[in-house]
Amino acid sequence: MTFTLARRAHKMNPSVIREILKITERPNMISFAGGLPSPETFPVQAMQEACARVLSQDGQAALQYAASEGYGPLRDWVAQELTSQGMHVGADQVLITTGSQQGLDLVAKVLVDAGSRVLVETPTYLGALQAFAPMEPRIEGVASDDEGVLPEALERQAEGARLAYLLPNFQNPTGRSMSASRRIRVTQTAAEKGLPLIEDNPYGDLWFDQAPPPALAARYPEGTVYLGSFSKILAPGLRLGYVVAPRTLYPKLLQAKQAADLHSPSFNQRVVAEVLKEGFIQRHIPTIRSRYRLQCQAMLGALEKAYGHTGDGGDDCLSWNRPMGGMFVWARLPAGLKAMDLLPIAVEQGVAFVPGSAFFAENPDPRSLRLSFVTPGLAEIESGVAALARSLEIARNRA
Amino acid sequence: MTFTLARRAHKMNPSVIREILKITERPNMISFAGGLPSPETFPVQAMQEACARVLSQDGQAALQYAASEGYGPLRDWVAQELTSQGMHVGADQVLITTGSQQGLDLVAKVLVDAGSRVLVETPTYLGALQAFAPMEPRIEGVASDDEGVLPEALERQAEGARLAYLLPNFQNPTGRSMSASRRIRVTQTAAEKGLPLIEDNPYGDLWFDQAPPPALAARYPEGTVYLGSFSKILAPGLRLGYVVAPRTLYPKLLQAKQAADLHSPSFNQRVVAEVLKEGFIQRHIPTIRSRYRLQCQAMLGALEKAYGHTGDGGDDCLSWNRPMGGMFVWARLPAGLKAMDLLPIAVEQGVAFVPGSAFFAENPDPRSLRLSFVTPGLAEIESGVAALARSLEIARNRA
Repeated sequence: MTFTLARRAHKMNPSVIREILKITERPNMISFAGGLPSPETFPVQAMQEACARVLSQDGQAALQYAASEGYGPLRDWVAQELTSQGMHVGADQVLITTGSQQGLDLVAKVLVDAGSRVLVETPTYLGALQAFAPMEPRIEGVASDDEGVLPEALERQAEGARLAYLLPNFQNPTGRSMSASRRIRVTQTAAEKGLPLIEDNPYGDLWFDQAPPPALAARYPEGTVYLGSFSKILAPGLRLGYVVAPRTLYPKLLQAKQAADLHSPSFNQRVVAEVLKEGFIQRHIPTIRSRYRLQCQAMLGALEKAYGHTGDGGDDCLSWNRPMGGMFVWARLPAGLKAMDLLPIAVEQGVAFVPGSAFFAENPDPRSLRLSFVTPGLAEIESGVAALARSLEIARNRA
Repeated sequence: MTFTLARRAHKMNPSVIREILKITERPNMISFAGGLPSPETFPVQAMQEACARVLSQDGQAALQYAASEGYGPLRDWVAQELTSQGMHVGADQVLITTGSQQGLDLVAKVLVDAGSRVLVETPTYLGALQAFAPMEPRIEGVASDDEGVLPEALERQAEGARLAYLLPNFQNPTGRSMSASRRIRVTQTAAEKGLPLIEDNPYGDLWFDQAPPPALAARYPEGTVYLGSFSKILAPGLRLGYVVAPRTLYPKLLQAKQAADLHSPSFNQRVVAEVLKEGFIQRHIPTIRSRYRLQCQAMLGALEKAYGHTGDGGDDCLSWNRPMGGMFVWARLPAGLKAMDLLPIAVEQGVAFVPGSAFFAENPDPRSLRLSFVTPGLAEIESGVAALARSLEIARNRA
């Protein structure tokens, strides 16, 4: 018995990251590889109380089928929260999804045909490339710098593209953020060209010292589909995210949602709505921010100690950026070294990272690597960076 | 700003059932329309205890990202349960999904190209038609009788078809079941033709007096993808189902799963695994069975009382079938009447149902209707059938 696979299925391959994450499960491995939030930040006690309340007060409704749009009070919360951040969102524009990853699947189903041109940052979130792939788009990287996509490049490529997928805040994989002035130019360009923007914002709340500038959707609401998530501010194991869409597009996304999984778990939605009551999140998020700020400082400090500079190492030394929030530092190896070749040496030394190549739609930079600072503790970060430095030294001597 | 929609999105339409369900939310409406399990069957107390245990014993892991395959102990349970029912399933063949609806989405992504021929029963589950639609198949109905698809018809249409989608147990919408002999002929035909079968079995555990014959996957494991669900035996609001796939196909389904929503909620999976411990389900399912048997008997009894026969009303009277499990009775109006025309009259009389036309891939039978007996209570069933009979009388007098 041989199954005839759909054309798209031939192109599906195991995620590189997934394979690397298996390595990191070895005992005593310090992992800068995963994008896993620190489990210390999960509100276990608040969840316990909320589960008990939801089940005792409204158990049957919480366990029943529910509307594809999502649970009313949770949609209300999202609309109010985003409005307080400068967007103007009605609850009727909010679609609760099974993680924001599902938002990407729905967007692709509704907007992408086989052969459609889809624009992404250079580099971009690997999971988005995977979510779009089943719809068989032609993915094009848009030239980008430390502030995100270059408006001139976006303008050149916009004509006829179905959408541009952007992560303005503490981007995965680079940790970079789009400046306020860049946001203005990007949204102006998109509006002029009639280019839909997919704004993915799972990390926006994780700023260290200063909230990021308003969302692209705040400046270009008629053309932006905004994706948010509860994974980084509450817990990813609940698989809850949301899409905020212009009212013209919402019904199609809703129908795609219904066909995909009917609705996201009503139990989880009610529990999260219960957890969010009475300002819990305003007390909770600052604790995540200060934890991640400390962990980022530890990583940057350890890198400075190892290399004697604050990030710009030139062509002969490791370089890295200095994120202002989120979960990731983006680094670049000295000329002549490749992150994929460094990885097995690093693993021998007890530390893992993700080679950056996986995150490029085209023309991968083999010298780049992604370092996550949120999963390991402070002491581990320090010894992990030391192990990384040792492995780099070994690789240099071999080269 | 106008979004250019994908070709598939132009074909997406609001579900007829969804629109009808809105009517049923009116106060005092007796609904035979929904496919909602009786909330009285939801194990609220067991859920409370399981949530508390999971969060106190293993809260951080339960709230973290997890493997796309699903939670190990839950996959083990599924493999053991299905093996005890006559299939031979390894846990490595089990993929936990966000409801079995998601299984349909994943199957379509992996096996269906635009223009691929997909065979379905006449009639078939509407949600499957919606799940397949984004991959733009050509859906073909296979002639069917009270025992499911006709093997001769399946044989004629098998050549070049990508898959046949079958619901052998207490099918939605008809409540019918495939006999043991029919299962043998259908699986032989499929094996001879190399036709993949998608076996959807959300209702199999809901038998009244006798367990159904072994699954198609038990006879044709190399060519059958089996879909199961916790929605009908525990609760749909958890959104947990599973796909059991031949090992050759499993990796592709897994990659499609990862791209769709990374994984199903780890919290829910652990809670359900906890609920399932120590034989809970063996004590719980019989209580659902006896409840639904009583409710089905009430509906059949009320219909007999109203029409003076046990199901076969000929062309001049309402006819209905006599399901041996599940949630639905399938009925047929007298010649000259259409279910869609009857619906507004029935709603005026205080009862709702789903016109059967929505469930046909082609050539809908306008006289057919689906009656669910699981959501209303016994007294409601009796008065709902009386209201249906009144509305039929009104419709006849108008015709």
